Amino acid sequence: MDHFRRIGQLRRRMTRANLPGLLVTHLPDLRYISGFTGSSAALAITKRSARLFTDGRYREQAAEEVKAAQVEIVSSSPGVAAVQWLSAQPGTSLGGFDPAWTTVADLERLKAALPSTLRRKFLLPLPAGLVEPLRGIKDEDELALMEKAALVGCELFRHILGFLRPGLAEIEVAAELEHQARRMGAEGMSFDTIVASGVRSSLPHGRATTAILPRKGFLTLDFGIILGGYCSDMTRTVYLGTPRKNERSAYESVLKAQEAGVAAVSAGTSCGEVDEATRSVLRRAGLAEAFSHSTGHGVGLEIHEPPRIGAGQKTRLAPGMVITIEPGVYLAGEFGIRIEDMVAVTKTGGRVLTPAPKALIEL
Amino acid sequence: MDHFRRIGQLRRRMTRANLPGLLVTHLPDLRYISGFTGSSAALAITKRSARLFTDGRYREQAAEEVKAAQVEIVSSSPGVAAVQWLSAQPGTSLGGFDPAWTTVADLERLKAALPSTLRRKFLLPLPAGLVEPLRGIKDEDELALMEKAALVGCELFRHILGFLRPGLAEIEVAAELEHQARRMGAEGMSFDTIVASGVRSSLPHGRATTAILPRKGFLTLDFGIILGGYCSDMTRTVYLGTPRKNERSAYESVLKAQEAGVAAVSAGTSCGEVDEATRSVLRRAGLAEAFSHSTGHGVGLEIHEPPRIGAGQKTRLAPGMVITIEPGVYLAGEFGIRIEDMVAVTKTGGRVLTPAPKALIEL
Repeated sequence: MDHFRRIGQLRRRMTRANLPGLLVTHLPDLRYISGFTGSSAALAITKRSARLFTDGRYREQAAEEVKAAQVEIVSSSPGVAAVQWLSAQPGTSLGGFDPAWTTVADLERLKAALPSTLRRKFLLPLPAGLVEPLRGIKDEDELALMEKAALVGCELFRHILGFLRPGLAEIEVAAELEHQARRMGAEGMSFDTIVASGVRSSLPHGRATTAILPRKGFLTLDFGIILGGYCSDMTRTVYLGTPRKNERSAYESVLKAQEAGVAAVSAGTSCGEVDEATRSVLRRAGLAEAFSHSTGHGVGLEIHEPPRIGAGQKTRLAPGMVITIEPGVYLAGEFGIRIEDMVAVTKTGGRVLTPAPKALIEL
Repeated sequence: MDHFRRIGQLRRRMTRANLPGLLVTHLPDLRYISGFTGSSAALAITKRSARLFTDGRYREQAAEEVKAAQVEIVSSSPGVAAVQWLSAQPGTSLGGFDPAWTTVADLERLKAALPSTLRRKFLLPLPAGLVEPLRGIKDEDELALMEKAALVGCELFRHILGFLRPGLAEIEVAAELEHQARRMGAEGMSFDTIVASGVRSSLPHGRATTAILPRKGFLTLDFGIILGGYCSDMTRTVYLGTPRKNERSAYESVLKAQEAGVAAVSAGTSCGEVDEATRSVLRRAGLAEAFSHSTGHGVGLEIHEPPRIGAGQKTRLAPGMVITIEPGVYLAGEFGIRIEDMVAVTKTGGRVLTPAPKALIEL
């Protein structure tokens, strides 16, 4: 990852926004810009310098990871140290902070740490985030990592198909999936693994429980791994036994909706249009009400990143974005189905990063 | 968990604080009060009613989990819906929000959703958190769960001792630990498992990497599981091979410091005094500089909760608190050692929840 280039891009954006100083406290942003992966730090950037503040636990690690900024170890709050340093830099009359990732209490603390003459004026909320749009467009290094993470996900799905059988507990399925993920080099899972079987498949976010896989019914697996800090995310729904006619036809509708969503992905298309592509298929199938969430979301260093692929969203897709397409239907007390791919936006369309089979698998 | 009782306790605190309404958005607080475990919700509480707002994905789950509050499914932001509902309740002229868990951007959004006459005055930052002190004192149900989680941790440590050998990658160790945790019923790990071997043991937060366990050197294992939403947390450092004299004596110093910290735990003692108990032992051993972090922290629904067991901290321990005692020494380029127990504060002392062996184990 070229952190020097990223800081350069950020400085150009700061110049355009007339912002002489910038305070970065959201850890994924900070990692993106500086490479630091620890759990406590703040980064201050001016036109000339960049300095990362962290505590003594990370002395060695910060020295190893951070090349594009100076590192200072502090015993007090890294945020406070960063804002004090920033306000003391020549020519730095303003420091932008990200209101989406700064709590009301933190802002009070940062202000209180400033000299009284600067307290009211120095800290300026960034209008829409300076870093977020940069993070949204993945560079080649990032795309390579994410593709690798997504392919590990597909491999995990293939593996778990050989493991599934009625009588297993959902958490045993999750345990096997996660163990295999670790063996394949995952640093961790990108969110709590969802294994929702039988009637529980109608819970869109049914984390694995001690519920036992039934002899007959849908099973939804929604999981992702972390590789080099980047998240993968995919969902497949399989059937234990032989589905009834209405179950099969609901599955076909979700699959058609999902394929329509993938087909709609293209640079320049709005996120709302992609959402409408999946939603209209389910609407025509009489399943509009049963599709109770958005079509998808951006993914990267965080499992949920902008843009949101939802109704009416005006953000336009751009090459390098990576998003999920994951329509589902949920019929309480009956069953649920969701199919999800990760898709990289290209100049001419979308490239599916999770090429695992989507036709209904009966086990 | 008795959520009716918790809402009752909260209402008494609201009355004492002259606060007719309360908005809860921090998910662990919300889970504590209402039992809801989903990833998106807001809870509004008045003297007479309590209402949880969430989205369509959680319709079934919220109905199952939440008994002590009404549930309303909304298609817009749960926080916005909650604040609008709160401000429309008779007699509710003010709504408290938690500045430690509300971002500057969220507060702006909440204010913008209020009728213009209420915009400036309705939302009031809580002085110190109304929920946090309640969560700090664990009740019997919580203590039982946390003790169980901590014992699973001890069992995992015992299991992994039989698995460790030079030549394994750190992530293989983490994989085995996490797989076994799942098999023992863990819902997940409470943080990224730390497996730091050889010279990497001097990284206090050295998450498991592809580094290979050496024939000779310290190995630090810091891990925790989640059971019923509650986190466990423990650290043991073992030795592969036979330690040198200086390594053994450093280990003995850390162990003495840790035992002194555990012995200092008692209702009424300040957190700073407990920190000083561990720190003074390491100071006398000439290792003050090498102990680069605080002695410990509270633990519960979150892995890091108040109080902080650090230098100068004035919070006094009280029966029902659960804290960690985890001094360590870190010598860059050489080695690191940390030993950590979870300790429940009782009226007369501290009860160690993680009774795994602490004498130096040589493998």
